[in-house]
Amino acid sequence: MAREKVAPALLDLRKRIRHSAAHVLAEAVLRLFPNAKLTIGPPTDDGFYYDFDVERPFTPDDLEKIDALMRESIKQGLRFEEWEVDRQEAIKRVADNPYKLEIIEGIPEGERITFARHAEFVDLCRGGHVWSTGEIKAFKLISSAGAYWRGDERNRMLQRIYGTAWESAAEMEKHLHQLAEAEKRDHRRLGVDLGLYFFDPIAPASPFFLPKGAHVYNRLIDYVRFLYLKNGYQEVVTPQILNTALWKRSGHYDAYRENMFFVEIDDREFGVKPMNCPAAAMIYAATLHSYRELPVRLADFGRLHRYERSGVTHGLTRVRSFSQDDAHIFCRPDQIAAEINGFIQMLRKSYATFGFTDIRVALSLRPDKRVGSDEMWDRAETALEAVMDESGLDYDKMPGEGAFYGPKIDFFVPDAIGREWQLGTVQLDFSLPERFDLEFAAEDGTRQRPVLIHRAMLGSLERFLGILVEHYAGAFPLWLAPVQAVVIPITDRNASYAESVKGKLQDAGLRVEIDVSNERMNAKIRNAQLQKVPYMLVVGDREQAAGKAAVRRRTGEDLGPRGIDEIRAMMLDEESGRA
Amino acid sequence: MAREKVAPALLDLRKRIRHSAAHVLAEAVLRLFPNAKLTIGPPTDDGFYYDFDVERPFTPDDLEKIDALMRESIKQGLRFEEWEVDRQEAIKRVADNPYKLEIIEGIPEGERITFARHAEFVDLCRGGHVWSTGEIKAFKLISSAGAYWRGDERNRMLQRIYGTAWESAAEMEKHLHQLAEAEKRDHRRLGVDLGLYFFDPIAPASPFFLPKGAHVYNRLIDYVRFLYLKNGYQEVVTPQILNTALWKRSGHYDAYRENMFFVEIDDREFGVKPMNCPAAAMIYAATLHSYRELPVRLADFGRLHRYERSGVTHGLTRVRSFSQDDAHIFCRPDQIAAEINGFIQMLRKSYATFGFTDIRVALSLRPDKRVGSDEMWDRAETALEAVMDESGLDYDKMPGEGAFYGPKIDFFVPDAIGREWQLGTVQLDFSLPERFDLEFAAEDGTRQRPVLIHRAMLGSLERFLGILVEHYAGAFPLWLAPVQAVVIPITDRNASYAESVKGKLQDAGLRVEIDVSNERMNAKIRNAQLQKVPYMLVVGDREQAAGKAAVRRRTGEDLGPRGIDEIRAMMLDEESGRA
Repeated sequence: MAREKVAPALLDLRKRIRHSAAHVLAEAVLRLFPNAKLTIGPPTDDGFYYDFDVERPFTPDDLEKIDALMRESIKQGLRFEEWEVDRQEAIKRVADNPYKLEIIEGIPEGERITFARHAEFVDLCRGGHVWSTGEIKAFKLISSAGAYWRGDERNRMLQRIYGTAWESAAEMEKHLHQLAEAEKRDHRRLGVDLGLYFFDPIAPASPFFLPKGAHVYNRLIDYVRFLYLKNGYQEVVTPQILNTALWKRSGHYDAYRENMFFVEIDDREFGVKPMNCPAAAMIYAATLHSYRELPVRLADFGRLHRYERSGVTHGLTRVRSFSQDDAHIFCRPDQIAAEINGFIQMLRKSYATFGFTDIRVALSLRPDKRVGSDEMWDRAETALEAVMDESGLDYDKMPGEGAFYGPKIDFFVPDAIGREWQLGTVQLDFSLPERFDLEFAAEDGTRQRPVLIHRAMLGSLERFLGILVEHYAGAFPLWLAPVQAVVIPITDRNASYAESVKGKLQDAGLRVEIDVSNERMNAKIRNAQLQKVPYMLVVGDREQAAGKAAVRRRTGEDLGPRGIDEIRAMMLDEESGRA
Repeated sequence: MAREKVAPALLDLRKRIRHSAAHVLAEAVLRLFPNAKLTIGPPTDDGFYYDFDVERPFTPDDLEKIDALMRESIKQGLRFEEWEVDRQEAIKRVADNPYKLEIIEGIPEGERITFARHAEFVDLCRGGHVWSTGEIKAFKLISSAGAYWRGDERNRMLQRIYGTAWESAAEMEKHLHQLAEAEKRDHRRLGVDLGLYFFDPIAPASPFFLPKGAHVYNRLIDYVRFLYLKNGYQEVVTPQILNTALWKRSGHYDAYRENMFFVEIDDREFGVKPMNCPAAAMIYAATLHSYRELPVRLADFGRLHRYERSGVTHGLTRVRSFSQDDAHIFCRPDQIAAEINGFIQMLRKSYATFGFTDIRVALSLRPDKRVGSDEMWDRAETALEAVMDESGLDYDKMPGEGAFYGPKIDFFVPDAIGREWQLGTVQLDFSLPERFDLEFAAEDGTRQRPVLIHRAMLGSLERFLGILVEHYAGAFPLWLAPVQAVVIPITDRNASYAESVKGKLQDAGLRVEIDVSNERMNAKIRNAQLQKVPYMLVVGDREQAAGKAAVRRRTGEDLGPRGIDEIRAMMLDEESGRA
């Protein structure tokens, strides 16, 4: 999900450091467990691991000893060497290791087979090391766990050791801190703690939103609708289960069938929609459009279903059932630039609302295999580049990375702890209007093809909500918070006053609860803080007599006693500051 | 769909009149076509028909002649006689008619077989006639059409004649007028004319809502949400595709499987949800509830899918894909009366908003086969009756008509042309809380079962929208109207002034369009009237100079020139009058 924004050269260095660290790890394990069988040890996005066939799981004690041996090896600054051998020789070298033999079997005839060495340690290896172990400036072993050979539960269980390695201690510290921060913010845990949503095997990878989660979810939709109203979008509501003939016409049946769910009705096959595009094309085609009416911007919040293997689903960020802030714009070719520009304006406004301001953009250009004339691509790409240049946004051109049906722009933002997420996308499509024979009546009376623009700002609302939970660490801004204030009566004597405080705020449309539990005041305050409620309004005899409430923010900030009208005005002001 | 509110005795009389009219029709047909073979001729909800095996379809000319012969027969006041015969005799009598023979075969051994006669005409017949043909005070032949024997296309095609018959000419006139009115208001036709929605065989019985239809649809949801907020409901969002294990637990798999769609995922069977109840139970069960928190009112606008045979689907009023204003209330047994009462208050308020005030209520009481203790039923029924008595609403008790899982109340309203529709329902459920082992912590610390109340006010929103289109004949009240005003510039000189008028109203949140077509003013006005747009704002040089617009209502009412501020205030006032 989260992508880091790192220069390619640095990315390559890190990969070499981590690959090298895996060798150093394996060297240490062999010194402690001479009978261990080596298998594979790749670098990963944020570290490395190595899987060993050993007689028993590694203990924390083992890891400590391994760590010490690794530091020794690194201190010695040992040279890495790589060399090629022929297949015969390779097989001889790993004759007693069935895993390595299997790996060699998998290497196609004619491809190079290489080994790498540092000090006494030798391993079958594709290569890609640093100069010497000394370049592993910082590393840390993280954990160990069982893992099946090739990830297949029918195979033997191996023991995996996870570690991370970096070009400097400072970078590693930053990473470990981010890891710890990410764990604290894990939206799967916070979702439960804050009563937002839950998952159940009865509907794998399909969230159940509790009232508080549904509240945030619906506020996101409200917000997008607010932007749509200002930007000339129209909402439509379309069927979810459509005949396979449609998915054949749209091309989804060929290209996306594996990710679709199918239903049989009256002996015919129907697909549950994984995308809204074909229905949008049908809506467009239902009416005759004149050039004067274009662009037509059709938004559809319809629920989508996509099959994702259970191995890759993850909390809200990768689910099988979700809705998108999805819209399809049908426009004339000469309107492309204005539409993309308008979309980017709206997208930036929406991102700023959530505190995402540091946007990175990737512009993907024509691939070799494509539909549409070169003139069409020239015009579209020129338009997109001009829009991007004007936007002042930092963007990378990605030649050859566009979809076969048109160029596209993807938008990435870093969250509060620096992890980068892809959110929005805007894609031109020269293909679907052909497939659905879409037309508009041009000024000269001829029938012409509109261009289709697929676009989303927040993307999957489920995923975006998951990202937001982590971005805010559960502390939603006032306008999104499911409960905006908790009134905390100090004694039972203050109960009816608490009710009147709640009532006054509620009448203004604010979402307020009273903590009627038998807990003591401090426990109630702590509770509200844990629930990330923006405001706590403590009311005791003194506040009641003065017609006030003692106001605290969830941050701990104490605003002291304030009149209820003042509190209401303050909260409404903060709420309206959203957009 | 639509039900009439008629006293049982009158209903019975109409049935006899129509059945008798069918005999008179058959008599006339036999006189004109002696070789015609009789099949069946039942009374229907608003008339009768008779299916004949004849050599060629009936012509309008035939119908005229038949009509004349029928009037003759009625004028004579011929006695109807019914008598029983034994099976042997019956078979002999109809020996040359394979249809009647098939009917006799279908009559179980031991059941009476009867014939009826008036004048020379004799027919195998279950009975149920008026005293004489003279009692058929009014009838009309409506149409003829082909119809397969037994409705099965593998059988022979028969010729059906439709008619209607009544106890008085006045009643028939009323009916025919209603029919004509209903045809004008047919929501399937108006949906197309007004650009609200369409259907396509690619997704049978699943509406595509165009922007205008989606607008009304979403406003209905907004309105229900507004009522929910005032009435302590909480919204949830739940999965649509759930493992069959859930549908087995809820009982839907046993009782409702035929109406469900199934999907296979990872080699397991999943059901597409036809109802929200099981997910509501899971949401309730996800949190521990204390007696103090009850009732919990969970609303779910989730899309539902139900298989309906293509023969019974009808426009928006019977579809396969829809959402409901569906909610599930979990409460203590002592809260039943208050919850039902609160629901009825809200329901009456919502119905009044749409001009449905003449509510009829049916209270269905315990059936023989049921779950739950007699004490539970006693308490629930007593509570419901007390609530109904207090409500002042007209209600009928229906002993034995309750669901096996609890008593229920259904709500019926007549629309603008007098057709009665069932809209709301509220059903107690003692079963689902058992099946899902739902609990709350009672005041004494024990765990107890909550009662579940299923309830809907408007029911299926698709169906309700269809009913509303017919009820309003497409002329939605201002708050629902997709376009609230059309600005009509008289000449091109007034175009930019028209824009400024539109802008001023739009800034106030009103939905305004400009008619920029090349039509003349009168055509534009007629067009806006056909589109049922509430206000037409005509702007020419004079209006522009005065900063006004000439205001017309879609009813034709001419309000004369008005200032834009005044128009805005008038419209906002009318809109806010909704609730």
